[in-house]
Amino acid sequence: MSNLEVAIVGYGNVGRGVHRALEENEDMSLAGIITRGPERVKKELEGKGETVPTLVDATIEGDFTERLPADVAVLCGGSKEDLPKQAPLFARYYNTVDSFDTHGNIPDYYDNVNRAAERGGHVSIVSTGWDPGLFSLQRVMADSYLPGATHNTFWGPGVSQGHSDAARQVEGVEDARSYTLPDEEIMEEIRAGKQLDLSSADKHRRLVYVVAEEGADREKIRREIKNMPEYFKPYSTEIEFLSSEEMETDHSNYPHGGVVFSGAQTSPGEKTSVEFRCQWASNPEATARIMVACARAAYRLNSRGCSGARTILQVPPADLSPRSHEQLLAEFM
Amino acid sequence: MSNLEVAIVGYGNVGRGVHRALEENEDMSLAGIITRGPERVKKELEGKGETVPTLVDATIEGDFTERLPADVAVLCGGSKEDLPKQAPLFARYYNTVDSFDTHGNIPDYYDNVNRAAERGGHVSIVSTGWDPGLFSLQRVMADSYLPGATHNTFWGPGVSQGHSDAARQVEGVEDARSYTLPDEEIMEEIRAGKQLDLSSADKHRRLVYVVAEEGADREKIRREIKNMPEYFKPYSTEIEFLSSEEMETDHSNYPHGGVVFSGAQTSPGEKTSVEFRCQWASNPEATARIMVACARAAYRLNSRGCSGARTILQVPPADLSPRSHEQLLAEFM
Repeated sequence: MSNLEVAIVGYGNVGRGVHRALEENEDMSLAGIITRGPERVKKELEGKGETVPTLVDATIEGDFTERLPADVAVLCGGSKEDLPKQAPLFARYYNTVDSFDTHGNIPDYYDNVNRAAERGGHVSIVSTGWDPGLFSLQRVMADSYLPGATHNTFWGPGVSQGHSDAARQVEGVEDARSYTLPDEEIMEEIRAGKQLDLSSADKHRRLVYVVAEEGADREKIRREIKNMPEYFKPYSTEIEFLSSEEMETDHSNYPHGGVVFSGAQTSPGEKTSVEFRCQWASNPEATARIMVACARAAYRLNSRGCSGARTILQVPPADLSPRSHEQLLAEFM
Repeated sequence: MSNLEVAIVGYGNVGRGVHRALEENEDMSLAGIITRGPERVKKELEGKGETVPTLVDATIEGDFTERLPADVAVLCGGSKEDLPKQAPLFARYYNTVDSFDTHGNIPDYYDNVNRAAERGGHVSIVSTGWDPGLFSLQRVMADSYLPGATHNTFWGPGVSQGHSDAARQVEGVEDARSYTLPDEEIMEEIRAGKQLDLSSADKHRRLVYVVAEEGADREKIRREIKNMPEYFKPYSTEIEFLSSEEMETDHSNYPHGGVVFSGAQTSPGEKTSVEFRCQWASNPEATARIMVACARAAYRLNSRGCSGARTILQVPPADLSPRSHEQLLAEFM
């Protein structure tokens, strides 16, 4: 089997997930890790008794391919600070995959990365993961074969990193974990075909676990979190305090998931609906696995002469698969 | 919006569904209908007060495009008798879409259609619909991002045409409708992450409604249906007799649906799973709608210079959509 050499850019939770996912995929191997903290990564891997691959300092610019030849770079940075700079930079040197997830900024982001990837002669698959990503695919497919269908997305139960970070900004909060919980009753009504026009706050509530600093005013913390505009105020939000030990034991994984419902009235009184549902034991690992499948597709598209940005909507699904055309026809159709 | 001219080949339940689906899609219109019974179709449409489009006799061979210019032909015949002959024939003249669904024969069928489509310079999207089709896509996607996952497909509740036809062959049976019913308990166990190695007969039971001919031996009918090898014998099968009026009133639609579960153990003790579920008010209309979205893709692929056979796995999903690239990025990602 051909061996795809993959570089990991950024070694946080998603980067670690990509590292593990590469071991699960026989047609791929780790070319190396590009990180702002090569020393930290070295220590972490040695501490776990793992082989230390080539480590490249991301802060030293220049042609990365000289220090780390690779077929694809999987960009594991965040959407706010990292990717808007990293993606156009790395698209010069490698085919890339990322999980840029600020929905409203995707068109601009796509254009920026597209220009860089075209100039570099590479393919960059942007905004992969499960939402955007698998959920986008589901919405577009259903919209295509069920014209006029309504689409409803529910998230959770799972940890929202953005909301956890927001709660952590409140004075007196040492640590916080915000769970998004879908309203099961509304979900069943939608599933049963009821037409409801609902906001995200109508469909979800939030449960925030907080470790308070010693002596902090818990009532004030509760009030401040509940009243944070956009993040918590529009939602029914519950706060529970716990010890840092409890946080460590019960909330150190990042499960997440959700469902997209699409429904159409195909004949009077009769209901047609499709739903895609996912439940991930670890959200960063899920994102990592989906990015790794997209790395395979980025390389293949580029090998066929393509360049520029792509979303998962523009990728033939078979290009995500390690299986041969013959095996897909015989065993998966 | 560009207008795609679509020919319908075969005017049964699926062909009627394609006719209706074309009216729902603003970028498409009906070029005409190619049928072995133009007189029957003319009468049917006139009887319903509908405009009669160009009707072409399928039994008169020759260059169909002279009698019916079109961008794509949607082939609505059956997998057993019609498509193996029709698809290679029409791929000479048009881009085509079909719903060939004999899973085991897909590789050979693909090769035959591929040769004809390449010779004709057309794109033929084969084996579309929901299974094969949407379910195939789901299995391949999940297999790509969850290496080692197990996949379980359940069908129903819904009418199986093949099994209904089989039951109708039994002596004394005037009409029959066979429902496939998934075992809900087993479905929930699979959903909860239990690893079970099950046959189709373990996962489903069958309920057959039968209209018996006057004076027929009902016990004999019951016994013969239950003992039909492959079709019913491996399954827990129930038979219910009813009048032809009841059959007409309660069973003249063809609802169907199903679910694909894919599950993986991503970390010890924790479960990651994805599921795609669909419920169709009318099975032939569902197939028709999916074929019509694929007609758009066949035309676009051909316009970009492609020729040959494709499955839905080889089609960039955005090509199924009537929406612009900009709208997909801004509203569907």
